[in-house]
Amino acid sequence: MKERNQMSTGLWLIGARGSVAVTSMVGALAVRAGLAGPAGCVLESPALRDRVRPGIGDLVFGGHDVSPLPLDKKAAALADAGVVPARLVEALRGELAAVEQEVRPLPEAATQAEVARAIAADLDAFRRRHDLERIVVVNVASTEPVPPAHPAHAGLDALRAALDEPGAVLPSSALVAYAALDAGCPYVDFTPSTGARLPALDELARERRLPYAGSDGKTGETLVKSVLAPMFAQRNLTVRSWSGINLLGGGDGANLAEPGANAAKAASKQRVLAETLGYTPQGDTRIDYVEDLGDFKTAWDLVTFEGFLGTRMRMEFSWHGCDSALAAPLILDLARLAAAAHRAGRAGPLTELAFFFKDPIGQVPHALADQWRTLCEFVAALGAEDASR
Amino acid sequence: MKERNQMSTGLWLIGARGSVAVTSMVGALAVRAGLAGPAGCVLESPALRDRVRPGIGDLVFGGHDVSPLPLDKKAAALADAGVVPARLVEALRGELAAVEQEVRPLPEAATQAEVARAIAADLDAFRRRHDLERIVVVNVASTEPVPPAHPAHAGLDALRAALDEPGAVLPSSALVAYAALDAGCPYVDFTPSTGARLPALDELARERRLPYAGSDGKTGETLVKSVLAPMFAQRNLTVRSWSGINLLGGGDGANLAEPGANAAKAASKQRVLAETLGYTPQGDTRIDYVEDLGDFKTAWDLVTFEGFLGTRMRMEFSWHGCDSALAAPLILDLARLAAAAHRAGRAGPLTELAFFFKDPIGQVPHALADQWRTLCEFVAALGAEDASR
Amino acid sequence: MKERNQMSTGLWLIGARGSVAVTSMVGALAVRAGLAGPAGCVLESPALRDRVRPGIGDLVFGGHDVSPLPLDKKAAALADAGVVPARLVEALRGELAAVEQEVRPLPEAATQAEVARAIAADLDAFRRRHDLERIVVVNVASTEPVPPAHPAHAGLDALRAALDEPGAVLPSSALVAYAALDAGCPYVDFTPSTGARLPALDELARERRLPYAGSDGKTGETLVKSVLAPMFAQRNLTVRSWSGINLLGGGDGANLAEPGANAAKAASKQRVLAETLGYTPQGDTRIDYVEDLGDFKTAWDLVTFEGFLGTRMRMEFSWHGCDSALAAPLILDLARLAAAAHRAGRAGPLTELAFFFKDPIGQVPHALADQWRTLCEFVAALGAEDASR
Amino acid sequence: MKERNQMSTGLWLIGARGSVAVTSMVGALAVRAGLAGPAGCVLESPALRDRVRPGIGDLVFGGHDVSPLPLDKKAAALADAGVVPARLVEALRGELAAVEQEVRPLPEAATQAEVARAIAADLDAFRRRHDLERIVVVNVASTEPVPPAHPAHAGLDALRAALDEPGAVLPSSALVAYAALDAGCPYVDFTPSTGARLPALDELARERRLPYAGSDGKTGETLVKSVLAPMFAQRNLTVRSWSGINLLGGGDGANLAEPGANAAKAASKQRVLAETLGYTPQGDTRIDYVEDLGDFKTAWDLVTFEGFLGTRMRMEFSWHGCDSALAAPLILDLARLAAAAHRAGRAGPLTELAFFFKDPIGQVPHALADQWRTLCEFVAALGAEDASR
Ligand SMILES: NC(=O)c1ccc[n+]([C@@H]2O[C@H](COP(=O)([O-])OP(=O)(O)OC[C@H]3O[C@@H](n4cnc5c(N)ncnc54)[C@H](O)[C@@H]3O)[C@@H](O)[C@H]2O)c1
Ligand SMILES: NC(=O)c1ccc[n+]([C@@H]2O[C@H](COP(=O)([O-])OP(=O)(O)OC[C@H]3O[C@@H](n4cnc5c(N)ncnc54)[C@H](O)[C@@H]3O)[C@@H](O)[C@H]2O)c1
Ligand SMILES: NC(=O)c1ccc[n+]([C@@H]2O[C@H](COP(=O)([O-])OP(=O)(O)OC[C@H]3O[C@@H](n4cnc5c(N)ncnc54)[C@H](O)[C@@H]3O)[C@@H](O)[C@H]2O)c1
Ligand SMILES: NC(=O)c1ccc[n+]([C@@H]2O[C@H](COP(=O)([O-])OP(=O)(O)OC[C@H]3O[C@@H](n4cnc5c(N)ncnc54)[C@H](O)[C@@H]3O)[C@@H](O)[C@H]2O)c1
Ligand code: NA
Ligand code: NA
Repeated sequence: MKERNQMSTGLWLIGARGSVAVTSMVGALAVRAGLAGPAGCVLESPALRDRVRPGIGDLVFGGHDVSPLPLDKKAAALADAGVVPARLVEALRGELAAVEQEVRPLPEAATQAEVARAIAADLDAFRRRHDLERIVVVNVASTEPVPPAHPAHAGLDALRAALDEPGAVLPSSALVAYAALDAGCPYVDFTPSTGARLPALDELARERRLPYAGSDGKTGETLVKSVLAPMFAQRNLTVRSWSGINLLGGGDGANLAEPGANAAKAASKQRVLAETLGYTPQGDTRIDYVEDLGDFKTAWDLVTFEGFLGTRMRMEFSWHGCDSALAAPLILDLARLAAAAHRAGRAGPLTELAFFFKDPIGQVPHALADQWRTLCEFVAALGAEDASR
Repeated sequence: MKERNQMSTGLWLIGARGSVAVTSMVGALAVRAGLAGPAGCVLESPALRDRVRPGIGDLVFGGHDVSPLPLDKKAAALADAGVVPARLVEALRGELAAVEQEVRPLPEAATQAEVARAIAADLDAFRRRHDLERIVVVNVASTEPVPPAHPAHAGLDALRAALDEPGAVLPSSALVAYAALDAGCPYVDFTPSTGARLPALDELARERRLPYAGSDGKTGETLVKSVLAPMFAQRNLTVRSWSGINLLGGGDGANLAEPGANAAKAASKQRVLAETLGYTPQGDTRIDYVEDLGDFKTAWDLVTFEGFLGTRMRMEFSWHGCDSALAAPLILDLARLAAAAHRAGRAGPLTELAFFFKDPIGQVPHALADQWRTLCEFVAALGAEDASR
Repeated sequence: MKERNQMSTGLWLIGARGSVAVTSMVGALAVRAGLAGPAGCVLESPALRDRVRPGIGDLVFGGHDVSPLPLDKKAAALADAGVVPARLVEALRGELAAVEQEVRPLPEAATQAEVARAIAADLDAFRRRHDLERIVVVNVASTEPVPPAHPAHAGLDALRAALDEPGAVLPSSALVAYAALDAGCPYVDFTPSTGARLPALDELARERRLPYAGSDGKTGETLVKSVLAPMFAQRNLTVRSWSGINLLGGGDGANLAEPGANAAKAASKQRVLAETLGYTPQGDTRIDYVEDLGDFKTAWDLVTFEGFLGTRMRMEFSWHGCDSALAAPLILDLARLAAAAHRAGRAGPLTELAFFFKDPIGQVPHALADQWRTLCEFVAALGAEDASR
Repeated sequence: MKERNQMSTGLWLIGARGSVAVTSMVGALAVRAGLAGPAGCVLESPALRDRVRPGIGDLVFGGHDVSPLPLDKKAAALADAGVVPARLVEALRGELAAVEQEVRPLPEAATQAEVARAIAADLDAFRRRHDLERIVVVNVASTEPVPPAHPAHAGLDALRAALDEPGAVLPSSALVAYAALDAGCPYVDFTPSTGARLPALDELARERRLPYAGSDGKTGETLVKSVLAPMFAQRNLTVRSWSGINLLGGGDGANLAEPGANAAKAASKQRVLAETLGYTPQGDTRIDYVEDLGDFKTAWDLVTFEGFLGTRMRMEFSWHGCDSALAAPLILDLARLAAAAHRAGRAGPLTELAFFFKDPIGQVPHALADQWRTLCEFVAALGAEDASR
């Protein structure tokens, strides 16, 4: 067994064989090995560097997936697609093989309660094998359709009872959140799926004194909206319409082409406008699957606005981003922040992490600049506590 | 003589017959007459409304220009070009004719000291005619080429001596600033010209206990840069290049087609990148004159950036704005803020107004969100003082 | 009754109170009155000028609509929206009032045969009132959903029998085409609706020695596609994906927001790619309704392509066109061409007019340059015949 | 010595160590070895395939350059930059080493006549070593500034006399053209430099019964212009302004950042508008060097146009192309076409190749579709002659 690292923190990924997950693994291993810098990691920007423990090098990877695709195959595919450099995948072959040992199939069982127990058992075994101080569970599995409501979502007792019955009370993301929290692990949802956003799960998190965070990583068009919309508001320019289309391929694109998942995502993408402008302009956000684009997404937005004496003006932007490359470093940030918050005794929703999410939990600012300030203060407070121990 | 308005404030425009000036006149008169709303006026946005006195209705217009083009002709041209509604120009014919009485040719004389005295005399006569509490002088004249340095710029005594000699010690914008300050008027420079940005003029402003502000109104591409560049910085994404081109017609476009003026402007447009990113990416900003575009400017920018593990990404935007419609409401804001600051006893550069400028005076934040917060605090402080009287 | 004009030609518009129709009326009347030039009229371009009779001035307007909105109200609304100059609407008030007399409600009756007879009666009366040489019927009514198939569409006898029964055998556009052809009038469909594209109607046109043309005017994104796609083909560059979105308001936009009409239109917009490239790239064309955009449509397309040794490249374009202003002059061209073809004895589909349509009838080239050549030859042939009379 | 290939044709590249040249070498070798397809090669498109001999596999490479950078180094750099696949460079290591033997330094001498003789000697030796049927010389060297006029450019006798004197009568591109033609080799200029475009050199080509072609390969923004501008003309839409900017890195970009070369190129880029529209719209084309973009160029164009009744509309496009990947296959096409034309006895300018050039020689159509038709006819004629031997 490797030497005890005071900060050794498990990063357990749901959807561990997907693009975001494997990019985050390759990246963290590369940074630890000194083969790459931490570009894109917010906690490594000049303003926040060296403030949050654990560091990237303290993270130990594992996870669940429903796919059998080996990590090295996925990493090679990501290299072919230009998402990660082929030389890194080559150089980290051994390290990736070690992570492969820690990725399990998502358990199945007769009742959801049993599935949750099997997940918890996987987490416990992982913790013991690596002598981890704690594990953060991060959901980067495929986006689920919006699930039907269920009365047992409203309270923890009802939920526990219902989980013991056969049948699906919770969608997969929420079941995993339940299992994680029940096993004492902070939970972060990087997807627009339900995750921990149910009264019963909030109750569980508070009972166990565990923090959770979400939802839906903000990596492209919505990120840009979260700085442009406040600009229009501050200049007292009325946004008349804001329409957009997202063209993307990859696994996420294929899944979002399903109307159900698409609807979940599109709603979460427009919320920033109402929140920062104070009204909802005309227009929608579309998501279209174009296989050829692979992991590189192109989003185009048209904004029409009105100024002094009614003058009509417009702005367009195109964003050509590599979604997995934008998301992966944020996964590392979120795992570190959730771990640090847990150590600092924080429980319930981490509303201070709105900076990272399209659809943040709670009544929080949606302008990126305000979210950034909140994040900086949060990091400062964590650092102060850390120092005072 | 019209009844005394406690707050009656002169807004004396240098370049009073230009597009920005006349749009601001038409707009203020329309707002006062209840014919139009104050869209684009920052002090009328929900966050700042009713905080700053004088109000738009308290402003009395006058100014200097070197052109003889009558205001009503210019207003009609602006209506033809779609900058202001023709019905407003029609409805405000009488009010514009009254302003016409207050626009004078820029004085000429044997020495710059004499020119300054003639300007001061114009200001005094304007103040008396309208029983104004104070006058704010705002420069919206054509952008000047970068002027040669002169030793007398360094101190007020040397400057006064030099102005008495024949020959040009100061460029026009700075001479007007000198005259305004010497006559007890706050001065705002909305252009990239020299204006009050000389040690000798700063000395004069402090001596006379007068505030001044500038430079170069931020209305288009730079405004967008001031929210996008911080976004890249906060996400720890390295901007590799940022290139842009501004296509514009109109009087300003024709003037900026001159290499000297163009250079002054282009430099002021890239400063925001170095200030918010902490480094200077590759790329330049071009300004090209395209007569056909008139007052509607199209700016296009290409940003290339690098994320996790070196992945290359890009963003483009096009901005189609009506420059005069974007600038004019800010002129009203600036005049009101300078007047309120003067009343509150502020002297020297109003660094809190960086929100309005491409090239703000002083060591100030260049991220729009930070500038916005500073502005809100400034307005709150002014309001508190105002209330305490 | 006005003096007999040898060429006096009726232009009977189905959807006569819509944007395209009224813009074409205002424009033709303005050109005739010498108040505007014929920009956008293909037959008035230097290459084709003075070749085709009737001329614009020979057209006499009338039509059917289901809406009661008076033409002058619609014209005023178009002027407010910036589609036509307000001064023209003002100047042509009298002429428009005269046209108003010639616009009738679309007839209703117990059987479609009776409706057709009522339409024919309206056409005959119009012809007599104006002593017209001939009438061309052009459909610019709202796009219909794709109609259900019906066995009587296959042959004229079956169709005639079925029309006598109660119930809808034909969608409105095809019923109008039937009535027009039966009344001896050439028919042009500027919409993607069914129109004359049924075997039974083709039979009728040939029987009556009448030409017809369609479908779906090519005015924006598809026009651009019809020149860019051949460019890629000629350079042997493989188009991997071609995706687009059309944002538009106005009556047409509101109607196309209906899924049925949208599907009819989107299919007709992608056809050009398969036809000019020889394969179908990935990607779709979306149509979204954004009320604020009014008649000014913004289309954005992303093309990804592959060159030498597999290198991936891309192109984007945005098109900001005023749909009615682009369509209206083509309506005048099409009416003139259909009239001239009729005079020249042409019957059946005018495949030589593919230049004007997104979804041209017949096995014709889809590259604009080829369609242009065909059109020029067609015009030359018509001219030769005309001269030889 | 390798076995005699009836069609064995030398392709002698001036600028043989540059990006375009080396990409064309790697590509031709890869196609010959069956490692890659001929995407981007116009003569391999479905319409023209198998019509022109020599084929790609018949080309033997050699050339001159002023740089000592080995071909394998350059090829590796192109692979790093994503211009050519690294696996091809690896696989073709041996073939590239063989080409390396055929690339010489550009000769230097006391008079230009002596330089020309040294170039001719290099060509002769190359022909003998490979038993070549003929050699085509193609200029892909860095673009030269516009050279000063010289009286000896007007006629061949004067030129010969002047070349014997010390001093530079001809710019490098023209001296090479002189040497090539004098040595019996067809000459193609892919750059905007002078090349063979001097009366004296035309005289020489006709005297020696040699074809030549040029100038300035059409690979990006101008290619798009050559299809869009005819579209506006055919639709009788008035183009008011057409402005553009080209951002590019790489060796070509660095060179074009020099004002002289930039001017030569920008002029050649706007010519297409005047030629296809019949008038010159407002606006300019800029070229800016942005090192970070490498061989991938981004061009952005804004077109403003006017339609029916004066309605103003606009179009924008961005083109993200890999210049070398777009140019290299055309180099192969041009060498094959020049060789076939020579074999067919053609002398003087090959005006039928306007399809390939921004600034084609002669009074030729500038619309791409017309150029394409001309090219197809030319290829058909060459094929007919070839067959009849
Ligand atoms: N990449 C971004 O920028 C970004 C931003 C916001 C949100 N997201 C979300 O992150 C998620 C992952 O994106 P990706 O690009 O990696 O997608 P992906 O399709 O490459 O990976 C998803 C993985 O989840 C697995 N999976 C599916 N259902 C599962 C389940 N019930 N339990 C466990 N694993 C399951 C799949 O087998 C797959 O390996 C998506 O939901 C996406 O919407 C991504
Ligand atoms: N519109 C914007 O968005 C914006 C933004 C930032 C800065 N500016 C600056 O504002 C200024 C005005 O822009 P505009 O569009 O109104 O230009 P404009 O050309 O329409 O008007 C300029 C006016 O200044 C007058 N003038 C020239 N020299 C003068 C002098 N020495 N003294 C007095 N008047 C003089 C001219 O006669 C003209 O009437 C320009 O310097 C421009 O660069 C404008
Ligand atoms: N404008 C363009 O560029 C363009 C291009 C191609 C096709 N089109 C087609 O042209 C048509 C007209 O477009 P528009 O912008 O004028 O739309 P619009 O909504 O302004 O006008 C349509 C008119 O048709 C009338 N109408 C509806 N159903 C009818 C019926 N059954 N019989 C008679 N009239 C009927 C409506 O009352 C309305 O007045 C649409 O089908 C559109 O898709 C337009
Ligand atoms: N790539 C395209 O799409 C494209 C299109 C049109 C024209 N062109 C022109 O093709 C040329 C080559 O472009 P590139 O990207 O390969 O540039 P590059 O800078 O990579 O290569 C140019 C080569 O020419 C050599 N050279 C310079 N002066 C020379 C001389 N006098 N004699 C012989 N060699 C000399 C240089 O050493 C260099 O190796 C440029 O002139 C460019 O403007 C390129
Ligand atoms: Na782009
Ligand atoms: Na645009």
